[in-house]
Formats: sequence, C-alpha cells, structure tokens
Amino acid sequence: MGKKPVIMVTNDDGISAPGLRTLIDIVKPLGRVLVIAPDKPQSGTAHSITINVPLRIHTIRKEADYEEYSCNGTPVDCVKLGHKILLKGKPDLLVSGINHGSNASISIIYSGTMAAVIESAVDGIPSVGFSLSDYSSKADFSACRSFLPKIINGVLNQGLPDGVCLNVNIPAVKEKDIRGIKICRQARASWVEDFDERKDPNGHDYYWLKGIFVKIDNGEDTDEWAIENNYISILPVQFDFTAYQWIDHFKKWTFNENT
Amino acid sequence: MGKKPVIMVTNDDGISAPGLRTLIDIVKPLGRVLVIAPDKPQSGTAHSITINVPLRIHTIRKEADYEEYSCNGTPVDCVKLGHKILLKGKPDLLVSGINHGSNASISIIYSGTMAAVIESAVDGIPSVGFSLSDYSSKADFSACRSFLPKIINGVLNQGLPDGVCLNVNIPAVKEKDIRGIKICRQARASWVEDFDERKDPNGHDYYWLKGIFVKIDNGEDTDEWAIENNYISILPVQFDFTAYQWIDHFKKWTFNENT
Repeated sequence: MGKKPVIMVTNDDGISAPGLRTLIDIVKPLGRVLVIAPDKPQSGTAHSITINVPLRIHTIRKEADYEEYSCNGTPVDCVKLGHKILLKGKPDLLVSGINHGSNASISIIYSGTMAAVIESAVDGIPSVGFSLSDYSSKADFSACRSFLPKIINGVLNQGLPDGVCLNVNIPAVKEKDIRGIKICRQARASWVEDFDERKDPNGHDYYWLKGIFVKIDNGEDTDEWAIENNYISILPVQFDFTAYQWIDHFKKWTFNENT
Repeated sequence: MGKKPVIMVTNDDGISAPGLRTLIDIVKPLGRVLVIAPDKPQSGTAHSITINVPLRIHTIRKEADYEEYSCNGTPVDCVKLGHKILLKGKPDLLVSGINHGSNASISIIYSGTMAAVIESAVDGIPSVGFSLSDYSSKADFSACRSFLPKIINGVLNQGLPDGVCLNVNIPAVKEKDIRGIKICRQARASWVEDFDERKDPNGHDYYWLKGIFVKIDNGEDTDEWAIENNYISILPVQFDFTAYQWIDHFKKWTFNENT
C-alpha cells in the first residue's frame, strides 16, 4: 500500500520511560519511526521551550526504518529539533507518551506530553498524545497494547482535521475491563495548590509543590467521567484560546478611566 | 468606596524587569498590591510548574498595602505560592507583565506571562496579561501608562465572566499614535523553527533555538491585525482545549484495526 508513513515519537517522562518504550513497540510495525525524547524527566514542563541554553542531540540508534535520539530540551524542543535537524521535514504522524499519569481535564495545560502534540498540530501534522492513569514506573500497559493500534491506524488512515489533535487517556484497568472508547469534552477542574512546607538545616523555609485535583464538572460527556467509568477517552484538542462566546460581551465595554 | 481590592502582580521577565516595575506603578494607586515574580527571566516557560526542585520565597519589601517577593520558580509557581503561602487566599485581581515582547497570536502558548494569567483564571480570579510589542529592556512604556489604568479599572469594576481572562497586547508606538482598543480573536500562525547550528571547541554540534513567526491569517478581527494597525488588542481567553466543532466528526469514527 505505498510508502511507509514516517512516525515521530516523543514523551515527557524521558527516553527510558516504560511508557515510551511501549509506544515505540506499538508504532514500529506501522511505519518508519523516529524517536526523539528528553534525556531526563520533563513532567510539568508544559509548552516550555529552551532559549537560554543550547540544545544537544544524542544519537542512540540508527537503523533502517528506526532512529532513536535523546536531547537535553523539553518535549516541544524535541518536536522542533525532530523537524528541522533530524527529519529536515515533517513526519506523517506524531505520537507522544505513553504518559505515566492522566492528562485528562485541566492536567492537559501542565503536560509536556500534550504540549509536544499541540506543537506538532500547530505545524499541521496529525498528532496524538497517550496517557495512562497510573503514575507508577511499573504501570501495566497491556490495555494500551491492545487499543492504541486501533486509534493510531484510525488516524493514519482517516487523518485529522486541520488545527485538531487528540488527547487520549487510558484508565488504569485490565484490558478486559475496558468498556470502549468515548469521544469527550474536557472536564472543568483545577489543581488546588497544597505546598509541603519545610525548613532546611539553616532554618530557612522551602516549599514542595503538591496539588489536589478538584473536579467541578460531573458531565457524563467529559474525559474524567469516561476514565472513571473504564472508558478510554479521546478529546479532540484545539489551540485557539479565543473565548468566542464572549467577544460581543467585551465589545460593549467602554474603557473609560472610571467605568 | 469600601475596602481596597487586593491586586496580585507577576510576570515572566523576572522581578527587575522594567515592564514589571511599570505595571507596579500603575496598580499601586488602585489597591493593596502583592508582587511575586520569578527571580530570573522565565520567558518561554509557558505553563510549566516546578516539581523536582523545592521552591523558596525571598522577601524584598513589606509595607502597608504593598508587599514584594521573588521566587525561584516559574510564573505559574508564583501564582500558586501567592495564593497559598503569601495571601492564604485569593486576590481580587491578578495582572501579569508588562511583557517585553508580543504575546499575540500563537505566542500565547509559549508565554509565561499569559500562563500565570490562565492559571489564576482556572482558580476563578479575574486576571489580565499585558505585553508590549518591543523586546528591548529599554522599551517605551508611556502608552501603557496611559491606557492600562482604563483596562484595569474596567476589569475591577465590571469583573470578568467565569472561565475567561484577557490577553492585552500593546503596539510599540507612541501614545498619540494608538488608534484605540479592539476586542479580537487569536490570529492563526506558527513559529517555524530555525536553529542556529554551531560546533563547540570539541567539534560537537549544538543548536540555539530561534524562530520565524509565520502568520497564515490576515483577518481584520485578529490580534495581529490590530497591533499592526496601532490598536491595543484585547483577546478574551478561555482554557478549554476541546475542539467542540469536531466532536460529532470523531463520534462517527470506528476504531477497528484497519479502518
């Protein structure tokens, strides 16, 4: 069926994360694969880019139809280096993950995994991020091995609309307990800060950022609902931040000093 | 007129940036002011959070109605520390900036300035980011001094709808040349990677990330158009990534192995 597609793979947990290794196994039979992932964990780096430090690429493997590299940057840097330096062009598909931990709901905004996906979609490439709702490095990816090829083949064969990428979240249950795949909207929620306050040996305060996930949206059409009910959630993602429904509201404002 | 509002101020260019000092001058007469900003430049850190390093807060000034702190984290960390540790509650308003450089169009996605604003809006706080289209540390902020009080008073007096914050961009022209304020949508564009490739003294390659801004949207209702035509742009911003218009499209997909 013609030329093999070029599939780029990245993540935010770093080059040696089991989730990345699983995703590589899944896409290897589907095309020519280029892996470029951060050389260390980059969870929570969101859409950050490296501008004050030079970037370096480390070659790990270079074979027919398979190349693997790490770099000292963020997931978004990986996408940019992959296009310009390694491929000297664009892949047919970008996949990111499999993240160790959910990126559903508002977590998408902190996620390096999904930032790579969005960066790639801004460049017009069909792009999908995968996250398993299990933070453990020993997480069980067997359900992913069963369902992800269906989703990836779906995207390879049907493409994605311009300006849209996918945020796929897989519940941390056994394959047999997964009830199916649901197309969802993003649940409204926030991570409420909950710092761990400590004192160093010199008596100075310091703080570890923790967080409590607070959901304020129980809609059965949301990604959170789907995952809690053992469905794989697929969120179609866009990157236009405009709150269109409020444009007319603000057009009525008068910006006088004392309005 | 009742109690003074509590106004939190942050940015991504760091505590000593002239843009931040200008914004502090502007809001000081309007309420009780709490400044917490990064201790070093954090441009391009987007919505990243610090999870592998402890955070520290450095007290700079503590006066009646004015407190100023720096921290070793990102703009989003500043917002979180400000709420939980310093205010032990939420401010009435968050302002971020004034950024040295535009955050219009797709630049919003890389911006630490706007990430602080969005983080604060996720927490339900009226929040506004300001950016001047001039990267220089010697930028002329006089037009900001004239127009920003109008916008900030507008938000203090009229509030913002739940789930919406504002991305305000000011063109780098003299105050007299500003033609007014326009409510806009986000222009479609991308930063095309353009690495500066070099060799270190040992002969190893390294790369500096640069970028070329490529606009593919000339709509006269966009933020880019407004700024190019000497208007201040106000983009109402939301943080729901759902591509609602494509949900039905994906519901028709069948996720079989060979679709």
